[in-house]
This record gives sequence, C-alpha cells and structure tokens, in this order.
Amino acid sequence: MTELPLAAGGAAAQALVDLFVVLLAAKLGDELFKRLGQPAIVGEILAGVLVGPAVLGLVDLTAALEVFAELGVVFLLFWVGLETRVTELRAVGSSAFLVGVLGVVLPFAGGFGLGLALGESGSTSAFLGAALVATSVGITSAVLVEIGALASRAGRTIIGAAIVDDIIAMLILAVAVGVAAGGTDLVGLAVVVALALGFVAFFALGGTALMRRRPGMLAAPRFSESPLLPAVILCLGLAALAAEIGLAAIIGAFLAGMMVAETTEQHPIEEEVAPLYAFFPPFFFASIGMQIDLGALVDAGTLALLVAVTALAAATKFLGAWLGARGLDEAEARFVGAGMVPRGEVGIIVAGIARASGVIGEEMFAVVVGMSVLTTLAVPPVLRVLGKRLPVQDAAPQPS
Amino acid sequence: MTELPLAAGGAAAQALVDLFVVLLAAKLGDELFKRLGQPAIVGEILAGVLVGPAVLGLVDLTAALEVFAELGVVFLLFWVGLETRVTELRAVGSSAFLVGVLGVVLPFAGGFGLGLALGESGSTSAFLGAALVATSVGITSAVLVEIGALASRAGRTIIGAAIVDDIIAMLILAVAVGVAAGGTDLVGLAVVVALALGFVAFFALGGTALMRRRPGMLAAPRFSESPLLPAVILCLGLAALAAEIGLAAIIGAFLAGMMVAETTEQHPIEEEVAPLYAFFPPFFFASIGMQIDLGALVDAGTLALLVAVTALAAATKFLGAWLGARGLDEAEARFVGAGMVPRGEVGIIVAGIARASGVIGEEMFAVVVGMSVLTTLAVPPVLRVLGKRLPVQDAAPQPS
Repeated sequence: MTELPLAAGGAAAQALVDLFVVLLAAKLGDELFKRLGQPAIVGEILAGVLVGPAVLGLVDLTAALEVFAELGVVFLLFWVGLETRVTELRAVGSSAFLVGVLGVVLPFAGGFGLGLALGESGSTSAFLGAALVATSVGITSAVLVEIGALASRAGRTIIGAAIVDDIIAMLILAVAVGVAAGGTDLVGLAVVVALALGFVAFFALGGTALMRRRPGMLAAPRFSESPLLPAVILCLGLAALAAEIGLAAIIGAFLAGMMVAETTEQHPIEEEVAPLYAFFPPFFFASIGMQIDLGALVDAGTLALLVAVTALAAATKFLGAWLGARGLDEAEARFVGAGMVPRGEVGIIVAGIARASGVIGEEMFAVVVGMSVLTTLAVPPVLRVLGKRLPVQDAAPQPS
Repeated sequence: MTELPLAAGGAAAQALVDLFVVLLAAKLGDELFKRLGQPAIVGEILAGVLVGPAVLGLVDLTAALEVFAELGVVFLLFWVGLETRVTELRAVGSSAFLVGVLGVVLPFAGGFGLGLALGESGSTSAFLGAALVATSVGITSAVLVEIGALASRAGRTIIGAAIVDDIIAMLILAVAVGVAAGGTDLVGLAVVVALALGFVAFFALGGTALMRRRPGMLAAPRFSESPLLPAVILCLGLAALAAEIGLAAIIGAFLAGMMVAETTEQHPIEEEVAPLYAFFPPFFFASIGMQIDLGALVDAGTLALLVAVTALAAATKFLGAWLGARGLDEAEARFVGAGMVPRGEVGIIVAGIARASGVIGEEMFAVVVGMSVLTTLAVPPVLRVLGKRLPVQDAAPQPS
C-alpha cells in the first residue's frame, strides 16, 4: 500500500494513538472498579499494568506520555491546593510536622537496616532507605478527593505532612547521592534546604497574602475571558520552579492552587479547572502501572524480597505517621498513618536514580517499583474504610 | 552545588519549563496583539518565533511540545465540529466541493510550473506544487471563531472545502512521494482514497445519525459525571484513526465534534471543552512560529524566492477558492478565497517530508516554511476586514 504521508508526522500520530489507548484503558479500569464498588484509581493503575509493557505491551511509557503523567499529578495537586486555605494548613501545622518527620525517620531506618542485614554496602543501604521514605501525595490526595475527606482535619494533616516529607526526602536523597558519588557537599546541602524552605514559605505566606489583597489580578489580562489561563500559567511556573530547585514539581502546583484559592474567583476557577483535572490525572495513574516489570518478579527469592520490603515500607510509614499524629483522635491518627503509606511515583523515581547511579541492581529496582505500586494499590480501599470512622466536623473556618 | 535528585526526572522537569515558557509567551503575544487591536493568533505565532530557535532560543520544539501542538489543533477542530451541524455542512456542499477542488488545482499547477521554470526536476517540482496545496484549516477556523464567523455560510464553506482540500492534498502528496520513490502504486492509491472517503462519510453520516438516535450515550459511563471524557476519548480515537489511514488527525477530531454536537448535552459539553480549547491551541500557534529559520532567509536570492513563492501561493489559492465560490455573494467569495490561503502546519509538514526524501534542499525547505508562516500571519487581519462585509444572515437552521 502507498505510504500515508499527510499523517501529521508519524511521531505525533503515534502519540495520539498512545494517548487514546491509555486514556480509554484508564477510564475502563475506573468504570469497572466503580461498578465493583472499589476505588477508581486502583482500576486506572491496573489498566496501566494491562496495556503497558508488563502484560499486553500496547503502549510504551514514551517521553510524551511521561509529560502527560507529570501534568496529571501537577493538576491533581493544583486542585488540592485550590481546596486548601493556608489558615487551615497552619491549624494542623504541628501535627503535620511531626507526621512528616516521624513518617520519614522510621522508613529510612527500616530500609537502611534491611540493606545492612542483607549484606549490602552502606551506600546501597542508604538508597534503599531513601526509596522507602517519600509518600506519594498525588495518590493519597486523589483518594481524599474521591471519598470527600480532603477538608477533614486528618486530610489537611496528610497534605501538610506530605510537604514536610518531600523536603526531608529530598535532603536524604541528596545525601545518598553525594555519598554514592564519594562525598557530601554540606554547604550545597544547606543551600538546597534553605532554597526549598524559602520557596515554600515565600509562596505559602507571601503569595497567598498578595492574592488576598489583589484578588482581581488573575482576571486582569485581556488574553483570557476568565482567570483560568493566568491561574494555569501560575501553576506551571511554580511547578517548574519547584522542580528546578530540587523539590517535587507538585509542591509548586499545590502552592499555586493555594494562592488562587485566595482570590474571589475561586468557584468559577474550580469549574474551569475540573476538565483539566478530569483529562490529565488518568495518565498519571496509568503510568504508575506501566512501570511495573512482572517478568522480574517471578523469581521466588525476588518475590520474597518484594513481600518483605513492602511490609517493611507499609509498617514503618504507618507507625511513624501514626506516632506523629498522636495529637489527633485515634481514628484520625490511623487514617493519617494509612494515608501516608502509598509511595507511588516517588519511590519509582528514587529507584530509577539509584539504578542509574549503579548503586542498586535490576532485582532491587524491580522490587522497589513493585513496592511502590503495591503500597499504592493497597491503601485506597483501606482509606475508604477508615474514612467512615473519622469524627464528623464543622466546616473548616474561612479566613477573614 | 549538590545535585537536585528529586526533581521528578530531569526530562519531565525540563518539559514543565518548556510548557510554561511557551504558554506564557503565547499568551503575552495574544495580550499585546489584542491591545493593539490585532488578531490574537498572530501574536501567538510571533511569540513562538521569539522564544523559539529563530530568535531567543529559549525553547526547542521537542517531541513533547509537538504532541501538545498536535493536541492543540485537534481540540481546535473538535471545537469547530461541536459548532457544526452536518445538515449545515450539506447545505454548502457543492460550493465547498468546488472551492476545495479549484483551491487545490491552481496552487499545484503554480508550484509545479514555478519548479520547472527554476530548472528543477519533475519530482522536485511536484513536491513544490504539493507543498503549496493544503490549507491549514486550524488557523482559519481559529480566526473564524475569534471574529464570530464560524456559523456564517462563508465560514461553513471554508470548513467543508478544507476537508475536500485535505483529501486531495493527501492524494497529490502520495503521488509525489510515489514518483520520488520511483513509481506509483495505483491500486494502493485507490485504496487510500476509498478509505479516506469511507471514513469521512461513515462518521459524518452514520456517526451523527447514531448520536441523534442515542443522545444519552456519552452520559452513560459511570467513570465520568459528565459527558466530557467520553467525548474527549471519541475525539482522540477518531483523530488517531484519521492519522492512521493517512488523513490529517484534525479531520477525525472535527467529525467527533460533529457527532457530539448531535447529542442533547451539547451545551454543557461546550462549557467543559472550553478549558481544553483554552489550554492546548496556544502550543499549536506558537509551534508554527518556532519552526521558522530566519538565518536561512537572510540571503537575498532566498528572500526573493520566498517572496515569489509566497505571492504565488497566496494568489493561486485565493483565485482557485474564489472561482469555486462563485455560487455565493461576491463578499462571501472573497472571504472564502482569503480564508483558504493560510498554509500553517500543513505546508511545513509537506516540506519536512520532501526534505527527508531528499527531493528538496535546505534552501527550498526554509522557503516553504517561511511561506507557510507568512500566509498564516497575513490572513487573519484580512479576514477581520472582509468578515465585516459578509451579508447578515439568520441563525443557521437547527436539524429536526
């Protein structure tokens, strides 16, 4: 047959096919799990396992799909930010801080200890610890939105703790990378931490104050009839900036959402952001499933290691976060503990860095990715149960 | 300074920066041109020239950006389809057909003749003719939306003609590629044409009839509270299918829009599609500007060739389309003639194929890309003037 040359460039046409297959599969997974009374995002992740390289091999995780996945979690956290007032976050500040810190210390110690017990080197053990550290706030917040618990005290605590968690995790990973490379640059580390804290404080406090004082700012440009595009540009800009200074991009997106939430246009913006929130996140959830390598997990020894690492990751994170949340009710503390367990994309990213540095091999890489996916799949059903036991609360106070 | 390892993978972080820079620049270009009383998309294209490799070099047209550009024009034509009823298209059918055919024949003859006159080979001349053929309906329809002329008889004629145009252009390009490769497969060509016509007829007639009969179809899945995601999945699916059979992906998107327009949920869907229509198309417009190579055009001989090719491309397309539109009023025929002139991304794609086949060199490639951008920049202001002279019409008739 003759070539088909007008097909808009083969690469872009192939990308359309990929986007179609992934979005359709994710939403069919969502549909099936909703009909079974199960959490939708579990269906979307498993759809990614199915169409991805692990099973059917219909779609590879191309660079373009990774960008859609990244925008998926960016818009997810932007949405969470839109639903969060900075005053509400400050009200849970001390609990969130404790949950973040203890939720990092215990998993790191567990992973580090397991590595040493397995006879691994110090730097490999440090990476195993680092890979067990960071919570995927994207996964948890999607479940919080789905079960309507985002505005609860426990939900706010999880969101705040996840930011603390991410900053410490960044620090631990930087130390681990430095050690693996033969030395740690303490001044550089201090600069990274100062930048990260300064970034969060500047936009969480100064940015929201600015928006409170000038709520018409986002509606000013003539290029847009609504504040949507100015808000989206702010979101992309802070996400890119956060990534540039070494934080997760989603922290920038979250801060942008909190800033936009302070403008009076909050509600029309939520309606307009909703289609972006519907379109992009399925690529994020499916991409997590697309990264699992079932072939590497058929070995009995590897499987045993996977079970051990997953159990350790879940138990240490739950325990640390639960201890940190002692200031809340028992039901809330359990909810927070469970909510911090999913590792999602963050564990996968750390494992990828460790593999690229040659500090962990293929087996441990497959195990950490498997742990990330398993903790992510296991938590949503648990949160739905625990969420029903949360104390009934008044609506969160509105800022003056 | 210490490495910043948690930055979500360097590639995805860089993509966030690219998306931020391109979207911000495009909307600032839009803002400036709106304030100057000029068409917004011209500002967006020039913003692409500015931040792209030609001037500042802030952003390269990466594979990921190309996918966003492609989705930009896909959602643009999906939107146009949402605003189009198949009955309205049929009402302008014969004019649109004539405009499409004559608007292809004259530019092809002109480009082919120019190539021979310049002493080029037959196959190079055929490619030059092919590069002058296809109208960028994306550009024109964005202007139609901006000036509110999409629902006019002239606007419908342009949309219908652009589909005819694309099918013939695909055919010419396939012949040119076949000739360059040493022979044309007539049976293969017949299959391609039959597939293209069958695809358009099947979804334009059967697809819309199905949606008219089962308007609740898009609201049936539980995965979505609204018909948005089912509609978007249909759009991506038909766009991918169109590209697979050799048509432009946007024809599939347009057909999907027409199908969705037949459902009773039309208006809520338009509101929900609007944010996607706001977010993606700026990447399409900016990407056109990012492809121009000013350095290749500083030579006086090349510049003269650019002027000649651009004048020829504009004059032959205007004349052909204007002749084809003789059945309309004179003011409408002029509007249609001018509206078919922009070559936009289509000329650039053809030039890229010809360069990859070795049939045209770097100079002619830069000239064709320059012609595509110049015809695209010149038309929007002209259409705004000509649009004011269009006869005032009743609202388009609604299908029963």
